[in-house]
Amino acid sequence: MKSLTRYLTFNVPARMDFVNITGEVDAAVRDSGVMEGLCLVNSMHITSSVFINDDESGLHADYKTWLEDLAPHDPKRYRHNLTGEDNADAHHKRQIMGREVVVAITKGRLDFGTWERIFYGEFDGRRKKRVLVKIIGE
Amino acid sequence: MKSLTRYLTFNVPARMDFVNITGEVDAAVRDSGVMEGLCLVNSMHITSSVFINDDESGLHADYKTWLEDLAPHDPKRYRHNLTGEDNADAHHKRQIMGREVVVAITKGRLDFGTWERIFYGEFDGRRKKRVLVKIIGE
Amino acid sequence: MKSLTRYLTFNVPARMDFVNITGEVDAAVRDSGVMEGLCLVNSMHITSSVFINDDESGLHADYKTWLEDLAPHDPKRYRHNLTGEDNADAHHKRQIMGREVVVAITKGRLDFGTWERIFYGEFDGRRKKRVLVKIIGE
Repeated sequence: MKSLTRYLTFNVPARMDFVNITGEVDAAVRDSGVMEGLCLVNSMHITSSVFINDDESGLHADYKTWLEDLAPHDPKRYRHNLTGEDNADAHHKRQIMGREVVVAITKGRLDFGTWERIFYGEFDGRRKKRVLVKIIGE
Repeated sequence: MKSLTRYLTFNVPARMDFVNITGEVDAAVRDSGVMEGLCLVNSMHITSSVFINDDESGLHADYKTWLEDLAPHDPKRYRHNLTGEDNADAHHKRQIMGREVVVAITKGRLDFGTWERIFYGEFDGRRKKRVLVKIIGE
Repeated sequence: MKSLTRYLTFNVPARMDFVNITGEVDAAVRDSGVMEGLCLVNSMHITSSVFINDDESGLHADYKTWLEDLAPHDPKRYRHNLTGEDNADAHHKRQIMGREVVVAITKGRLDFGTWERIFYGEFDGRRKKRVLVKIIGE
């Protein structure tokens, strides 16, 4: 069995935004030498997500509006914010969008449908965050 | 390490519906010869889901009502639809229900609780879609 | 390839609550002897979740309020409840919070960010439930 572990680092200048990380994950798959296996990609933080969807700016704007409606950034709304934080909304948004994706590796490549792209979803940005890529297989 | 890759094809006649695919995934596990391992099942599209829940028609009707309430199919509501699409709602519904499931294989079978069943969740149907089953283990 | 399968049992006294199970999963990883691999942790039931977030009681209270707002426990609201059940809301809450997590194992330990903790999320408690931990790697 082969394995590869890689940490990607982000510092997103906005409070909420989405970053296409497909290229970085694809490079890790190639570097691993794994031909058949699984690739886990997860946020190492609890106020951000890794998810797969379309790389279309209108859709990303829609997601931001929708998530803000489902879990508004309102520092007075949440008990979590009594701890001195103001990011309770980010913990909620992350649950909608998910922590991680697991992607198949087939013949040495990410086994993706036509429009699948991997995104880092930031909901409490303006600070350093990390994403883990873990690959196992043969 | 053994592995198996299989593509399932669907053409769901409704815009939104749920299809029990447990039998197809179970057959792939048996064909793989894997006794201990992991089985990934994911939609290869960004407007549909793979999820695990109950095979009960009342619950599925409830899910449809709920998802339509959380992300209505309204072509004028979303910026994504300015690109000529009318399926922005499907991209949102898919995030609630998820892209993929990972299931344990123990003693050559899906290691499931009593009521766990795997579903393909379609939110933009009436066209050909694919699901990937990837199995690794020994 | 090494593997380990472990079943954790819970009987949560409240209808909805969150239990930190990081210690149990960590013990399973150590017992497996796997140094590099993947660890799947999933609910074996369709009215409960396994998810990763912060171990902060205010946030957990916020989650309960939010989930109750998104999918209220109202026995008359759902068609599923016509089957004699009263837990349709729990099937909905579980989809928001997710069924499973997949965690990387690196150098024999859960490869976690500073604040990541694994929770069992119960939405239809006061009965025996099971969580599956499946580890594969080398």
